[in-house]
Amino acid sequence: MDTTQTVSLSLEESAGLVSGILRHAGFSERHVRTLTDTMVAGERDGCAAHGLYRTLVCVHSLRSGKVVGDAEPVVHDQAPAIVRVDARGGFSLLAFDAGLPHLLDKARTSGLAAMAINRCVHFSALWPEIERLTDAGLVALACNPSHAWVAPAGGRVPLLGTNPFAFGWPRPDGHPYVFDFATSAVARGEIELRRRAGQPLPEGVGIDADGQPTTDPQAVFDGGAMLTFGGHKGSALSTMIELIAGPLIGDLTSLESLQHDAGAGASPYHGELVLALDPQRFLGADASAHQARAEAFLADFAGSGARLPSQRRYQARQRSLAEGVRIPANLHSELLALLD
Amino acid sequence: MDTTQTVSLSLEESAGLVSGILRHAGFSERHVRTLTDTMVAGERDGCAAHGLYRTLVCVHSLRSGKVVGDAEPVVHDQAPAIVRVDARGGFSLLAFDAGLPHLLDKARTSGLAAMAINRCVHFSALWPEIERLTDAGLVALACNPSHAWVAPAGGRVPLLGTNPFAFGWPRPDGHPYVFDFATSAVARGEIELRRRAGQPLPEGVGIDADGQPTTDPQAVFDGGAMLTFGGHKGSALSTMIELIAGPLIGDLTSLESLQHDAGAGASPYHGELVLALDPQRFLGADASAHQARAEAFLADFAGSGARLPSQRRYQARQRSLAEGVRIPANLHSELLALLD
Repeated sequence: MDTTQTVSLSLEESAGLVSGILRHAGFSERHVRTLTDTMVAGERDGCAAHGLYRTLVCVHSLRSGKVVGDAEPVVHDQAPAIVRVDARGGFSLLAFDAGLPHLLDKARTSGLAAMAINRCVHFSALWPEIERLTDAGLVALACNPSHAWVAPAGGRVPLLGTNPFAFGWPRPDGHPYVFDFATSAVARGEIELRRRAGQPLPEGVGIDADGQPTTDPQAVFDGGAMLTFGGHKGSALSTMIELIAGPLIGDLTSLESLQHDAGAGASPYHGELVLALDPQRFLGADASAHQARAEAFLADFAGSGARLPSQRRYQARQRSLAEGVRIPANLHSELLALLD
Repeated sequence: MDTTQTVSLSLEESAGLVSGILRHAGFSERHVRTLTDTMVAGERDGCAAHGLYRTLVCVHSLRSGKVVGDAEPVVHDQAPAIVRVDARGGFSLLAFDAGLPHLLDKARTSGLAAMAINRCVHFSALWPEIERLTDAGLVALACNPSHAWVAPAGGRVPLLGTNPFAFGWPRPDGHPYVFDFATSAVARGEIELRRRAGQPLPEGVGIDADGQPTTDPQAVFDGGAMLTFGGHKGSALSTMIELIAGPLIGDLTSLESLQHDAGAGASPYHGELVLALDPQRFLGADASAHQARAEAFLADFAGSGARLPSQRRYQARQRSLAEGVRIPANLHSELLALLD
């Protein structure tokens, strides 16, 4: 098949296709809805790796028994400013949804609050969740471990995950300021792509089994490790994520998550930490004046040639809302086959 | 004078010297105490740039009218999980001290809490404050803007400060896991040192007035800018710090702080955000079991050749506690001259 062929779908058609597949595979209606929303949002925003393609991974995870397709999350009121959600082996998204109203309430009451999601299967980007909080006028942070593929600075052994860190700041007009980055130097998938293409890695991305810097993708997989972005500072940040989205919330580190996977190659199983801060409670009546100062600060970025994060994503969103999305024809065929 | 000559001081002698100078300069007794504690801790831990040398800067700031030497901080109970401290133009350290008991109470009651320090003059590292929280068994984060010397990724104009980010995790036996790093690629002082020595900068540290990469320290000062660590990810993190330790707490961005300085070359004047999270409230009776898992995770670092942050600092501390500190003889003379 010509891999350059694409199929055009409206966002409604995309949602219909994805939800039909997930329903057919056996996910409960609540999981179907949250999974569909997130994967269509990924495709809409031009993030193909978190888009419709992920439907295949979700179905694979269910069939291989690595996710509970009808898990009903249980919400615990842990402390005045902490809500804990037990995902009970289901995907994280429904647990986030179940905990969100409590997180909003607590942040607005206390000024800031945390949501700890436990025992979830996790594959999704964090920005869709961050945007739920910025839509509600809150400042948001989120992070989670993943699988231990990344060595800390100076080390030879992978102890860290690709550990994403995401942040959102609500803006009165237009899209929020949002970033969502892996603390690894590059994504795991990038190394796999280079390996298949026979291309070398950039410098500073991986080490071999002896702990020496390497540009050979295969050496990273053969007992080597990925590296974090930003040297010892990125490594410190990733270690922080292991601690606060692992033991602090009573959940697995990336190493423990990888051991739990036991070679199945499923999505990581662990926890997630979300923090929400309410500018209204920090600032009271002065909130809008200080928000205007933040707007002036962010406006200076555009004036100086600097790009704000997520701009490419917002541009893709605008395009997709008008024109729908285009996915590879072979992906479309693979998706349709899951309806049989 | 031979700059290799040093003077040996016990920690008690160091504290006596610093507090004598600060008292003589006109700082109130409460400021003398918090400033002395922090500068002696810096010298003790081998951080000369935050050590006894800073006494000169403190006195200069007072004499040039850039800090209020007897400012009494005012504590506001802002929200159930937020304490706000108005430093009223004094150094940040006394404001931190004044707010700390409230932050501890709120974190233990709510599960997590924030302290916003406003209108403070700031020169100190964040790790001494982080250690106050880890000593109390809490997980801690802290950050602040500084002066706008750093350009965001892709930009030509300095809009960001060197914006430190610090984190602490309490450990039941021994020193906490603590990092405290500038989000700039290198410290401002490092560029000045290279300029004086006629040495080029490493790649990726600065840009010239045209926004082009440069290794010439003078070009960074002449209308150029410093860069963040870690490319667009470090830039995003630094931007987050501007927002959450600036407008979110109703205080100045690094650009506004630099404008406030108006060329005086004093310590930055702005705010600081501190977050405290209580593992006991996140985990209840399971806290110690999960803390043990964190210990196993951190123990793996040593086994794999990775260095935990702050280790060099803790080694210097051990040495200083036994042997005292050595400071350059010319610094010692400059300090003694301030007692005249």
